[in-house]
Formats: sequence, structure tokens, C-alpha cells
Amino acid sequence: MISKKMEELGKKPSAIREIFEYSNKRKKEIGAQNVFDFSLGNPNIPAPAEVNETIIKLINERESIDLHGYTSGPGDLNTRTVIANNIKKRFNFEVDFTNIYMTCGAAASLEISLKALCNRGDEVIVLAPYFPEYKVFIENADAKAIEVKCRENDLGIDVSAVKKAITDKTKAIIVNSPNNPSGVVFSKNDIKDLISVLNQYSNRDSGPIYFICDEPYREIVYGNIEVTYVPNLYNETIVCYSYSKSLSLPGERIGYIMVSPLCKNSSDIFAAVCGAGRASGYVCAPSLMQYVVSKCDGLLPDIKKYADNRNLIYNSLTEIGFDVIRPDGAFYLFMKSPIKDAKEFCETAKKFELLLVPSDSFGIEGYVRIAYCVSYEQIEKSIPAFKLLYKEYYK
Amino acid sequence: MISKKMEELGKKPSAIREIFEYSNKRKKEIGAQNVFDFSLGNPNIPAPAEVNETIIKLINERESIDLHGYTSGPGDLNTRTVIANNIKKRFNFEVDFTNIYMTCGAAASLEISLKALCNRGDEVIVLAPYFPEYKVFIENADAKAIEVKCRENDLGIDVSAVKKAITDKTKAIIVNSPNNPSGVVFSKNDIKDLISVLNQYSNRDSGPIYFICDEPYREIVYGNIEVTYVPNLYNETIVCYSYSKSLSLPGERIGYIMVSPLCKNSSDIFAAVCGAGRASGYVCAPSLMQYVVSKCDGLLPDIKKYADNRNLIYNSLTEIGFDVIRPDGAFYLFMKSPIKDAKEFCETAKKFELLLVPSDSFGIEGYVRIAYCVSYEQIEKSIPAFKLLYKEYYK
Repeated sequence: MISKKMEELGKKPSAIREIFEYSNKRKKEIGAQNVFDFSLGNPNIPAPAEVNETIIKLINERESIDLHGYTSGPGDLNTRTVIANNIKKRFNFEVDFTNIYMTCGAAASLEISLKALCNRGDEVIVLAPYFPEYKVFIENADAKAIEVKCRENDLGIDVSAVKKAITDKTKAIIVNSPNNPSGVVFSKNDIKDLISVLNQYSNRDSGPIYFICDEPYREIVYGNIEVTYVPNLYNETIVCYSYSKSLSLPGERIGYIMVSPLCKNSSDIFAAVCGAGRASGYVCAPSLMQYVVSKCDGLLPDIKKYADNRNLIYNSLTEIGFDVIRPDGAFYLFMKSPIKDAKEFCETAKKFELLLVPSDSFGIEGYVRIAYCVSYEQIEKSIPAFKLLYKEYYK
Repeated sequence: MISKKMEELGKKPSAIREIFEYSNKRKKEIGAQNVFDFSLGNPNIPAPAEVNETIIKLINERESIDLHGYTSGPGDLNTRTVIANNIKKRFNFEVDFTNIYMTCGAAASLEISLKALCNRGDEVIVLAPYFPEYKVFIENADAKAIEVKCRENDLGIDVSAVKKAITDKTKAIIVNSPNNPSGVVFSKNDIKDLISVLNQYSNRDSGPIYFICDEPYREIVYGNIEVTYVPNLYNETIVCYSYSKSLSLPGERIGYIMVSPLCKNSSDIFAAVCGAGRASGYVCAPSLMQYVVSKCDGLLPDIKKYADNRNLIYNSLTEIGFDVIRPDGAFYLFMKSPIKDAKEFCETAKKFELLLVPSDSFGIEGYVRIAYCVSYEQIEKSIPAFKLLYKEYYK
């Protein structure tokens, strides 16, 4: 009688959630330091000091009614202007505040963008492996997720497979780079090849194919890796951003949508974004955090710890003999399961207190995700366990 | 090609928004102190000092990773427990944290509850005058808003009209008391009469009719007015709460849903609430504000200023001769338009720099809404203007 769909969505056990609960139970049994939990994508680097300093300054300097009052639906004008100016500076891309809509984080950015773009029956392409909530947000917009697998060897974009998946109903493609769950940063060549395919559809009667850049991990990259700024290469682009990872504020729910001013009907799309935000009950993004962002946007996180972790785990696993995709960004690493059934492999890993997530949750078989946003010590201590796990399969 | 429905929703000029823009323009022309803007429902009493004190304390005492990190989807366990305990104490109603789901404010509470309850084609009764976004949220849940007018004389609940409006498809009724826009607190008798009608449908094949209490203004009442706590009288109740008005935090987007444990399938509804929150992209309610609420829930606002304003404007308008509904709560007052066309009346009011909202925006004709959450001085200064306005109609 109530919505079965929502009830099921609320009850559906998420693989990550189940591991989380197992982890808590196991930690109680044998001590937290003896459980090597690599399942959760929670930043373990604290927010830059400027974040809390700004909060205190705002509280001391601004009137409470103003600080905690409503902003307009798209957000505080000054915050949106600061963000637009930083985009101009960082990416040499012309935008102003009229292109920026403040949101409650990346999930809201995606949910709102999809609802703004899609009509019933539209199709949205996602590249597997992908963040499982994509499917939830796409279906929430009455559209259908079309999965296209990444290249087997390096988990790059399989552009010819994308081309085959495009139909008259394709409304958008979501590209998440740096990628959760694989840690891969898609190469500029992959992005360019993808765009040249999308360009072939730009004059369709049913409109262009929108490029949705989901990039909460943009700043979390290692070495001289460039994350291509797609709006500079393709007009019909919508950027979904979040400060969850770059400012380590995942609980505060703050991010933005940038509707490229180069979209053919940019202002209509922006209006639809405002409409979708309104329909979903987002009156405005949290006001205090909007003002924090106006002071902290552009601060880059101190990712040295993540980089150290990345090097340690990547080198150790490779040395042991595992087949690992080298991650250039985010704080995830994708490792081949020695057997086809990654779930079974994860069960075996539990024997050594290693908690990994099977890639089945991400729309692809045969891998596990290792989230290395944990302490360096945890990784160090876990290496012997990984060695024993390896020996289970290769004597 | 994009969603026309969302585009229109984003572009649809809201009457209140239009007045807001006119107000800004007019203030620039003749000075802010000469414009009597009664159009906006923004609290003008600052948040209790404890709110900002708690924020600073939390920043000083808790680890950033923890303070700004994700909470679980339904919210921080301790916060939910505090809220449940306060409900027990204040209303003598048995709940625990499993019944509480933290949200980004009342709009999110309603959007999520409606999506959790409704299937395509369901009907939801709203009592006119009503908050215009109700229709947006109901349609977002693929359901239809059925308007039932309140009693002409006192804007109480017209229970027999509600009864006539009930069909097999009626899934819920939204009751907002104290009421925005009328300021009316529905009497216990009205609520009881309504419940005795709803009770007749409790064994329907299509399930009971849910009573959705939208009560962000619960604490904003004057004199010895009791706001009936519906869960004590009717089992199938869902409370949508927000701290926007009680703690003067409208921009921070923090509130909760309480699914009554007495609902026949309470835990299924709670799961559907979790599912709907997830589908709408609400990962969790803003974490810092959840922790603030765990310390500040139950603080009652210092509403003396609102009460003084209420008395001044109610007495003055009555004395002038206007026909006014006495408001017992919220910070709104409903006044009869001397002519049938309230929009025209509002246009005339503009001649005297009085900015009022025609009741047409709220699903009812012939009234204007006066939001008196303004300075006492503004009300004092506006009285001569109201006198002149009166003279336009009654020489």
C-alpha cells in the first residue's frame, strides 16, 4: 500500500553496509587493531584548519539571522561568484555565478541534474565499474541506466562499446574521474575519443547527449596526473562537484552543479536544475557551509598521506604477486580476484581479517575494491595477511 | 528535450518571489525604512545563543573527521535518541531512535514522507489555505493534491468537506498547525473530528489514511494555546518537523521525520522513508547541525517579540476595521480582502508601500497573508498606511 519500491530500496542490504556491520562485530570480538577494514570510502585526512577557523570567524562576525538564514534556492550569490571565479582561474573556462547551483553534495548534484535532464524512458550510460547509487538516481528520474563495461586491461573508457550502447533515447553519460571504485583517472585521449563520438549526435532531433562529470575526487590525484576539464572540450557538459573529499566534509553535504554556459540551452537547463532541486525538497544548500566554501573553495587537501598509502599498498600487493590496476586518483584500488567469483574471494579474505568489497556491487565481476583511506599502520600491518591470502590461491 | 516539467517549475514565478524582487527595487528607490514588507516568512529572532556556543564547543572538542564525517542515513544515533526522549517527555508518547529519521528540514521531511507513502495516482488531501510547495512535493511523488477548503468563518478544518473528498485513492492528509499561511492553530475538537472520519477507513483494503503533521511552527504559539500532538490520538501518523523556526536556523536545513511506532506497518514505512531519502540524494542530514540539535532540541525560542508583534498588528488592524482571523501561532495573519480579488487589493496596498501576499498563492481567494516576523517598529510605522488603505474601500 505504501511505495514498495521505496520500501525495498530502504531494506535492500548494501554489500558495503553489510561489511561495515560485520567489521564492527569483528572489531568487538578480536580488537579493532586486528581487523583490516578496507571497505569504507570515508576520508581519513581531517578538513583543512581553515574550515573550522572560518566557521568560528563567521559565528563571531556575522549576525545569526543572516548566517543561519535562507539563501536563495541556487545559493548565496557571493559563494557562487567565488566558485565561478576559481573555475575561470584554475581551468581557464568562462563561467559566472548564473551557471552555479549550490547543492547538498555530489549525491544531490547528480539526483538534481538527472531529474532536470531526463524524461520518462530516457537512457543514461554509466561506465562499469560505477558507484552503485547512480542506478538509484537514474531510476528516480524515471530513466534507465545502461551499463557499458570499461576496457578489461586498464579500466579505461571503451569508447566503441559506448558508441554501440547509444540509442535515440540516450540522454546523458555519467563519467566519474578520478573513479570510485577503480581509482583510475581517465586519460585525455579516452575523453577526447568519447567526445568525438558524442559530437556525432549533437544535432539529433532529441537533443544532444549530455556529459555529466561526477568529480568529487578531482583534487585527489598523485604525481603529474591531469584530470581533464571536460567543459573545455565539449559544450553539453554538466559538472557535479562536492567538497566531501577535497575539504574532508562528507557529513556536511555541500557541493555544486555547474551547467556549462556553452550548453545550447544552458539557461533552460539551469532553470530545470532549480525546478528539480525544488521538487526534491532542497530549499537551499546548508547556509553556514555555503559561506565556509566561499572562503575555502580552492584550498587543496594535504593528500600526502593518501599518496603514501597508495604507494605502500600498490607496491606491496604488486610485489606479492596480485594483479592490480594502478590507481592515479581517489583513494581506491582495484585488484583482480584470483578466482572468477569475487564474493567468494572476499569471504576467503575474511579468514585473514581482510575486509574487501567485491566488484559485483559496482556492476563488474572479478575484482575487489580496496579503500586505502585508512591509517598507514593499518596497511603495514595488513601486508602479511595479504601474503597469506595470496598463498591460498598460488602455492 | 530536457524535462519540461522541471524547467517550468524552475521558471514559474512565485508570487512571493515577485513581491520580494519588487520590495528590493522599491527599497532602493525610496529607502528600506519606507517600505512595509510583510511578504516573507523569515524568522527575525536570532537562534538561541546555545546554538552558536554549541558549534564552537563541538569544533573545539571533537575530531574534525568525526564532526564533519558521514552519519548513517537515518542520522546520528545519539541525536535520534535525544529527540525520541524529548518527545516522550514533552508529549508522553513512547518512541525510540528507530522511529526518528533526520532530514534536511521540513521540505525534505515532506518530500521524503510523500515519496515513501505514495504510489502513482494516489491522492493526498491538503487543507486550503496551504503552503504552495505541498503541491510540488505531492506531484513529485506521482500523486495528486486534493484541495479541501477550510471553514469560511475561522479557517478551522471543515471535516465534512474532508469526508466528501476521501476516495479509494486517498493515501494521506497533510495538516499544518500552527498554520502557514493563516496563523490558525487547529482546535483539538477539529483534530478529533477529523480523526474519527479517518478511523472509518482504517481497515480499507488499500490501507489506512496517513495523517502527516507538518509542524515547523509547533513551538511558535501565543497564550495558553495547546497544539494537539496527533500521534497520541491517531496511530497512522507521521510527524514532519524542522528546526528552521524553533531554533531560527532556516538556512541550515535540519529537521526530522517521526514515523509513529503505532503505525500498523511502522518499520516498513520507516524503511520506505530511508529508501525515499536515498533516492532523493539525501545521504545524511548535515552532520554538524545534527550534533547541534542533540544539544539544543527542546530549547524553546524566545517568542516574546513575535507575541508583541502579533498583538500590535492584530489589535491595530481590528481597530481600523479590517476583518482579521485571530492568529494563535506561527508568525502570519490572514486578513479578509475588502474586495473579492485579493491580487487587486494587494496592488492597491502597494500604493501605500504595503507589501502583502494574496491568498490565491495558498489555494484560497479573498484574503491576504501578513507575515509579521518583522521589527516592531515596522509594524508601528505601517499602521497609518493600513488606515489609508482601509479608507480606499470604506470612506
